[in-house]
Amino acid sequence: AASIITIGDELLIGQTIDTNSAWMAQELNKIGIWVKRRVAVGDSWNDIRDALNEESKQSQIILITGGLGPTADDITKPLLCEYFGGKMVVNEEKLQHVKYLFEEVLKRPLLERNLKQAEVPDVCKVLLNERGTAPGMVFEKDNRLYISLPGVPYEMKGLMTNDVLPMIQKRFPLLTIIHRNLVTAGIGESFLAEKIQDIEESLPENIKLAYLPNFGMVKLRLTGTGSNREETESAIEKYFLQLKERLRELVVTDQDLPLEQVVLELLKKNNMSLGTAESCTGGYLAHLITSIPGSSVVFRGSVVSYANDVKEKVLGVPDRVLNEHGAVSELTVKAMVNGALEQLRADVVIATTGIMGPGGGTTNKPVGMVWIGVGNKERVSTRLLQLRYDRSTNIQITAANSFNLLRQFILGEA
Amino acid sequence: AASIITIGDELLIGQTIDTNSAWMAQELNKIGIWVKRRVAVGDSWNDIRDALNEESKQSQIILITGGLGPTADDITKPLLCEYFGGKMVVNEEKLQHVKYLFEEVLKRPLLERNLKQAEVPDVCKVLLNERGTAPGMVFEKDNRLYISLPGVPYEMKGLMTNDVLPMIQKRFPLLTIIHRNLVTAGIGESFLAEKIQDIEESLPENIKLAYLPNFGMVKLRLTGTGSNREETESAIEKYFLQLKERLRELVVTDQDLPLEQVVLELLKKNNMSLGTAESCTGGYLAHLITSIPGSSVVFRGSVVSYANDVKEKVLGVPDRVLNEHGAVSELTVKAMVNGALEQLRADVVIATTGIMGPGGGTTNKPVGMVWIGVGNKERVSTRLLQLRYDRSTNIQITAANSFNLLRQFILGEA
Repeated sequence: AASIITIGDELLIGQTIDTNSAWMAQELNKIGIWVKRRVAVGDSWNDIRDALNEESKQSQIILITGGLGPTADDITKPLLCEYFGGKMVVNEEKLQHVKYLFEEVLKRPLLERNLKQAEVPDVCKVLLNERGTAPGMVFEKDNRLYISLPGVPYEMKGLMTNDVLPMIQKRFPLLTIIHRNLVTAGIGESFLAEKIQDIEESLPENIKLAYLPNFGMVKLRLTGTGSNREETESAIEKYFLQLKERLRELVVTDQDLPLEQVVLELLKKNNMSLGTAESCTGGYLAHLITSIPGSSVVFRGSVVSYANDVKEKVLGVPDRVLNEHGAVSELTVKAMVNGALEQLRADVVIATTGIMGPGGGTTNKPVGMVWIGVGNKERVSTRLLQLRYDRSTNIQITAANSFNLLRQFILGEA
Repeated sequence: AASIITIGDELLIGQTIDTNSAWMAQELNKIGIWVKRRVAVGDSWNDIRDALNEESKQSQIILITGGLGPTADDITKPLLCEYFGGKMVVNEEKLQHVKYLFEEVLKRPLLERNLKQAEVPDVCKVLLNERGTAPGMVFEKDNRLYISLPGVPYEMKGLMTNDVLPMIQKRFPLLTIIHRNLVTAGIGESFLAEKIQDIEESLPENIKLAYLPNFGMVKLRLTGTGSNREETESAIEKYFLQLKERLRELVVTDQDLPLEQVVLELLKKNNMSLGTAESCTGGYLAHLITSIPGSSVVFRGSVVSYANDVKEKVLGVPDRVLNEHGAVSELTVKAMVNGALEQLRADVVIATTGIMGPGGGTTNKPVGMVWIGVGNKERVSTRLLQLRYDRSTNIQITAANSFNLLRQFILGEA
C-alpha cells in the first residue's frame, strides 16, 4: 500500500485545495496500488519528520509532494537530505536543465537561488523534471520507497507518468483494483439500499459497495480487488450487471465520467450540436462542456443572459413574458431555449433560469427555485427544481439536473 | 492544535476532492486554532482506529468528517461507539427531527434504516443537525475533544458554524492567527525573493512568509501568531506594509480574495457594468463572476462564441477578419470586445480567444496561444499569452490574466 504526504501550510490554513492527491491516487489505483492514507502537514521540520516516521509504519511506498521551490519556506529537500543521512551535491544533468529552462524557455536571468535547484542529496536517485526546476527524488530505506515530487500539478503529473508509475510497476507486486460506477437519479440512498439489499449482502469479501450521494443523485461504486485480473473482472462484472438490471429505470450512466462528458458522447453519436442559454448557471454549463478536450466538435456556444434585457435583446424573450411571468418562469425558460436555437444555430439547447441565493428570493419565488428547459426545433421539455442549499451547491445541482434532462431528451425519455 | 480526519474510500481512490478540510481549517484559523495535520483514511475499522490513536498524540481537538450515512459502508458511528466504550441508544430529539425531515421536507416514506440515523452512542453529546439526518457527535477522553460531523458539506458547515466553533471558543485558550496576502504578477518567485530578501530575513520568529506561485502569479502570505491580538496585528501590519511598498509596481491585490472578486468590487466602486465575450475560456469567466453573491448588480452577461459563425452572427466579428487573420488574432479579439459592448450593453468587456489544447494547434498558432482584450467604447487593450500547460491550467491562467488586465484597464494602467 501507499501513503501520500502533502507538505505546505497553505493546505492547513485552507488556502489551497489539494487536487494533487486525488489525481495521484487515481493513477496508483490504475496500476494496482492501494492508497491507504493521505496526510497533509505544514512547512515544519518536526511535523514532516513525524509524518515520514509514521507513514513508514503504514506503507511501503511513500509519496511526498510540495516544499521543493527556490524560496526559504521550501524545506523538503534539506529535510530529506538530513532524514536519509546524505549531503547536498550538484546534479550536473539537472544543472544543465535549469540553465536551459532559464535561457531558452523562460528567457530570464538565472539567479544563484535557481542554481540551488540543481543541488540534490547524494543519497537519492534523481528524476529529471522536464517541466520545471524542482527535481524529483527517490530514496530507499528499510525496503521502503520514498518519492519526493514538486507540488506544482503540471510538474508532478509529468514525473508521475514518465518515471514514478513505471518504476513502481517494476518494483512491486501489483494487485488488480477495479472500480465500476453507476450513477442513479430519482431516489435517495436509503431507498436505493433497500432495493439492492440482497445483492449487497451477497457480495464476496473482495468486492465492496459504496454509496456516494452528490448533487441530488447517488453514485454506487463497486470496488473489486484481487491478484488475478480476469477473475476479479468477471466477478465484479457479474454484480455490476445485477445492480444495473435492478436499478434499470434509475440509471443515469454506467460509466465513470462526469455527466457532461456522458452527454457530449451522446450528442456526438447522434450528430447533434449543442448550445446553452444560461441565466442562473451563469456560464457554468458552458464551462463544464468546454473543459472537455474536443468539445468544439459539438458545442456551438452560450448566451449567458444575466440581465433581463440581455434575455430580451439577445435571446428574444418577449418583454411581455418577462413582465407578466417573471424571469424565473416556465415561459421564460422556453423562450430562452427558442432564442438560443436561433441565435446559436444549435440542434439542441439547454436553458436555465432561477434564484441561486443567498439574496433575490421572494415569497412566490424563493431562493432555490429553478426552471430548466431542453429543446430542439420541434419541442421543449422543462423541469422545475426547488433547491435548498448554498449558492455554489445550487449551481452545481442545477448543472447536474440540466445535463440529465438533456440526456433524457435525446433518448426520448423527456 | 487540531487534527482533521476525513473518512471515505472515495478520498483514497481519487474519486472525490476533499473541500471540507480546507473550509474547516479556514474557520478554525479565524477563531485562533491551528490545524496541525489533516489525514484521510478509508472506510476501514483498523485504519480509522489507527488514525484516532495517532491524532490523539498530536492534537487536543480531533475533527472527524464522513461515514455517517444510512448505508452499510458508513461505519463511523458504530466505530466511535466502540472506541469510546459506549452503547447505542435512540436520541429522542434527533428521532423527532428525522421524522419531521421525511414527512415535511423530503416528503418521502420513512424507512427503518432512516430511524437508525437517530441512534447515537450513549457516551457522546449530540449536536442537532438541522440540515440532514446524520447527527453531530462530541466525545471526550483524556482531555481531548473528538467531534464527528457528516461529510455532506452543507450539513458539516451548519454544525461547524452553529455548534462546533462556539464550543471550541469556550473551551480552549485561543491564539491569534492572522494571515495577510499580497498577490503579485510580472516576476517569478526567485526574483521576488531577491527583491525582499532583507525584509524576509528581518521577520521575527512569530511571523512566517510563504510564496505561493499559481496561475502565472505569486501570492505572498504573511502568517503571524501570538497570544495578544493587538500586538500580533500591529507587528504583521508593519512587515506587510514594507512588502507592499517594496513591490508596489507588481501588486495585483492586497486582499485575500479571488481576483474576480477584487475586480467586481472595483467595478462596483466605479459604477461600471461588465460583459464577457469568450471563446477559449468557454464561459469560465462568466462562471467565476456569477459565483459571487450579488454579482448581478455588475454583470450583464456573456456571449460564449465557441463556433466561428457565432463570433460572426452574434458578436458581429467581420467574416473578413476571421478569414484573413483567423479566430485567434488581435483583430478578432478586438472585434469580439466591440460586439459584446453592443450586444450586452456593458460598460466594459473582456474577450478571449485562443487554443487551449491538447489538439487544435498549428505551426503559426501553437497550443497555448491566447489573445485577451479588454475595452470600453473609447479604447481596447490587448495582451498576448503563450501558455505551455494542460487544457485546464491554460483556461485558469487565461482567466487570471483576463481579470488582471481588466483591473489594470480600469485603473488606467493598461
